[in-house]
Amino acid sequence: MRMYDVIARKRDGGELTDAEIAWFVRGCVTGEIPDYQISALLMAVYLRGMTARETAELTLCMAASGDTVDLSSVPGVTVDKHSTGGVGDKTTLAAIPMAASLGVFAAKMSGRGLGHTGGTIDKLESIPGFRTGLSRGEFLRIVRQVGCCIAGQSGNLVPADKKLYALRDVTATVESVPLIASSVMSKKLASGAGRILLDVKAGSGAFMKTPEQAAGLARAMVDIGKHAGRRTEALVTAMDRPLGRSVGNWLEVREACETLQGRGPEDLTVLSVELAAEMLFLAGGGNRADCRAKAERSIADGSAFRKFREMTAAQGGDVSVLDHPDGFGAAEASLSVDAPESGFVFSMDTERCGEASVLLGAGREKLGDGIDPFAGFVLRKKTGDRVEKGEPLAVLYARTEEKCRSAAPLLAGAFFIRAQAPSPAPSILARVTEDGVTWMPGAARG
Amino acid sequence: MRMYDVIARKRDGGELTDAEIAWFVRGCVTGEIPDYQISALLMAVYLRGMTARETAELTLCMAASGDTVDLSSVPGVTVDKHSTGGVGDKTTLAAIPMAASLGVFAAKMSGRGLGHTGGTIDKLESIPGFRTGLSRGEFLRIVRQVGCCIAGQSGNLVPADKKLYALRDVTATVESVPLIASSVMSKKLASGAGRILLDVKAGSGAFMKTPEQAAGLARAMVDIGKHAGRRTEALVTAMDRPLGRSVGNWLEVREACETLQGRGPEDLTVLSVELAAEMLFLAGGGNRADCRAKAERSIADGSAFRKFREMTAAQGGDVSVLDHPDGFGAAEASLSVDAPESGFVFSMDTERCGEASVLLGAGREKLGDGIDPFAGFVLRKKTGDRVEKGEPLAVLYARTEEKCRSAAPLLAGAFFIRAQAPSPAPSILARVTEDGVTWMPGAARG
Repeated sequence: MRMYDVIARKRDGGELTDAEIAWFVRGCVTGEIPDYQISALLMAVYLRGMTARETAELTLCMAASGDTVDLSSVPGVTVDKHSTGGVGDKTTLAAIPMAASLGVFAAKMSGRGLGHTGGTIDKLESIPGFRTGLSRGEFLRIVRQVGCCIAGQSGNLVPADKKLYALRDVTATVESVPLIASSVMSKKLASGAGRILLDVKAGSGAFMKTPEQAAGLARAMVDIGKHAGRRTEALVTAMDRPLGRSVGNWLEVREACETLQGRGPEDLTVLSVELAAEMLFLAGGGNRADCRAKAERSIADGSAFRKFREMTAAQGGDVSVLDHPDGFGAAEASLSVDAPESGFVFSMDTERCGEASVLLGAGREKLGDGIDPFAGFVLRKKTGDRVEKGEPLAVLYARTEEKCRSAAPLLAGAFFIRAQAPSPAPSILARVTEDGVTWMPGAARG
Repeated sequence: MRMYDVIARKRDGGELTDAEIAWFVRGCVTGEIPDYQISALLMAVYLRGMTARETAELTLCMAASGDTVDLSSVPGVTVDKHSTGGVGDKTTLAAIPMAASLGVFAAKMSGRGLGHTGGTIDKLESIPGFRTGLSRGEFLRIVRQVGCCIAGQSGNLVPADKKLYALRDVTATVESVPLIASSVMSKKLASGAGRILLDVKAGSGAFMKTPEQAAGLARAMVDIGKHAGRRTEALVTAMDRPLGRSVGNWLEVREACETLQGRGPEDLTVLSVELAAEMLFLAGGGNRADCRAKAERSIADGSAFRKFREMTAAQGGDVSVLDHPDGFGAAEASLSVDAPESGFVFSMDTERCGEASVLLGAGREKLGDGIDPFAGFVLRKKTGDRVEKGEPLAVLYARTEEKCRSAAPLLAGAFFIRAQAPSPAPSILARVTEDGVTWMPGAARG
């Protein structure tokens, strides 16, 4: 087989064979195919696309390119939950304990934040003592005993994705549906869960700028799951504003705890409940309405928050800060960003909000940068809210006042205030299953 | 400037700025832009194209990326002649002495053969003593004294093309009009001639399979010449069968001599005269009809062949082999390829003919391979000819009978014999000038 021929076929819009895809993935991992040929193929895939069959085959080969996690010792149905990333998205911290409190097993491997999107591992590490670097044995033991565990990736999982992602990142070939879908799903398949729930974000803070694009990506990933024999469903959800009110690692853990205790922001609560309910539904926990009712009850009866405490304790975290967050630490400096005029928050540039959080010290521009667990901001106003001139839009937190001042104009510029209120829009836009896309009432697709 | 942004813009079908193109070409030559980013851009250019302005700018930057030849010491108008390559194409050997005998100055840098197409330098080196590796000073002196010189490339001419071509060759991005046009024309511009005549081949033995495609490439190159202030014209000519009857280095020199003496095959004579006439026309030698008459006269009165002898002598070659080719060497083995049935040669697979010549030892599969000056074949029948079963189609020449036998089936398979004769077609299909494309009567375009 010659890489030249593989590139030429895709360049001309042709379909690669299973054998060619397997050979390509192997060659990426062994280093036998040089980077310049890989990146020529990536650009050809970006511009010519891949069929559902090619995408599924690429994903299976990538998933098998390194270590895989064996969850067969878990005494129940395992469900993974993955979000394509956004600003203020702490649903993993809320939905996974909720689902686990209802009998779903969730063995979640998560990542660190990069650029404007946060990472679950960074958030959990703001809890004193919380260990995310677990051995495979510890990880499985906690999943079996507690029902859920959230840890960093261990072992040599999906080395083909590491190779391809590093090249995509420098050759402008990241935003390709088959390449994103195969990257996400190869890691889900290698992580071993039997069922997969995806939260695909759409809007100014997401990869996919429109709900229609997000639904396309969701369909591609659901198709891959079907092909791999792992039942997969997706929700397409709004990322046209930060989720909840808090952005920043400890601030988000705190908001997740409030949500698990029934005191969280409405949008975050609605989405976390829906995700937990879908996880339960995928695990065979009854019809969707029943699952949703059970998820809501897990908040009301305290079992969801207890499960989060239990997981935190099992992973070495100090549960007292979850119980008494006011007694825990806080950022040294804070600054209010005030409304320059009266009106309604008409829309928000969510990516800018995420960039402001990086400037404050809550995120990193490149892998390896340190982060400040207490940095971030709390929104006082969000899209749709009425605001008077001089009222606070948000409060910034950082290690120094200088950092606050440097991030303030960026966050202020992320608010678009107008005289009229925007039309209300749902935050859950569509559900994607093997049967197709179901759009929610009132969801704009464009 | 970031290469990522340059790739992304071209990926999205945008137009690169002059500054971006200049920065890219510089980065290719210095090595500051890594190969994987260059090849991603090459694939984006292949699939998205380039505007005439981008192509011209790329060419100018490439031409200026290394040494350039200064022809200002030549006491007259300099005209370069370039063919995009074919099988049996020895027109350079015939047209350049013809034009030089009429007062045109031709300082021609040429290349070696690769794959199924031959190279002028290899052909000339079959003449005992002929030196193609000249210093810049020798080269210019011969041009000034004789009026023409054909040498190998010397100095560091167009290093950007060397870099880009090496990557295109392994990333399936060779056959792109802006990339071919900029590669050819950057070398022509760096070679210093004031006017440029291009012979763009179309058909089964050429890069461009249809006359329409070849005319598109010719237009792109003529546009570049205009942009660079070097008047450029092109002929689109047929490469649906080998040119002339001889393929192989010495065999082709011999046929070129016969042509210069008025005894050559008709198709080769017609095209060589037309090319010489166009060179004279570009040099300001009168209207096209007059130029053609002068070129024909240069054969009839012996001045064209005398000029070839003069150039050969100036470059150290033994002119006695040109005068008495029968007394010179020949291949050790020969073999006749006979017609398997009676009928007409309906068409020929010219690329296969070229591959057969490589098998015989007349060409090379990769740079650095040695070649046999006497190997090759002489066609007894070509497209349109009547043939009886058992009559020779061609005679093969090689160092051993085994080589002849190994190439025979390939060459035999290049002849398609049918009961009916093909419709006759002209060998000069179109003329391309700054004013546009003029198709010749009877030329099929598709």
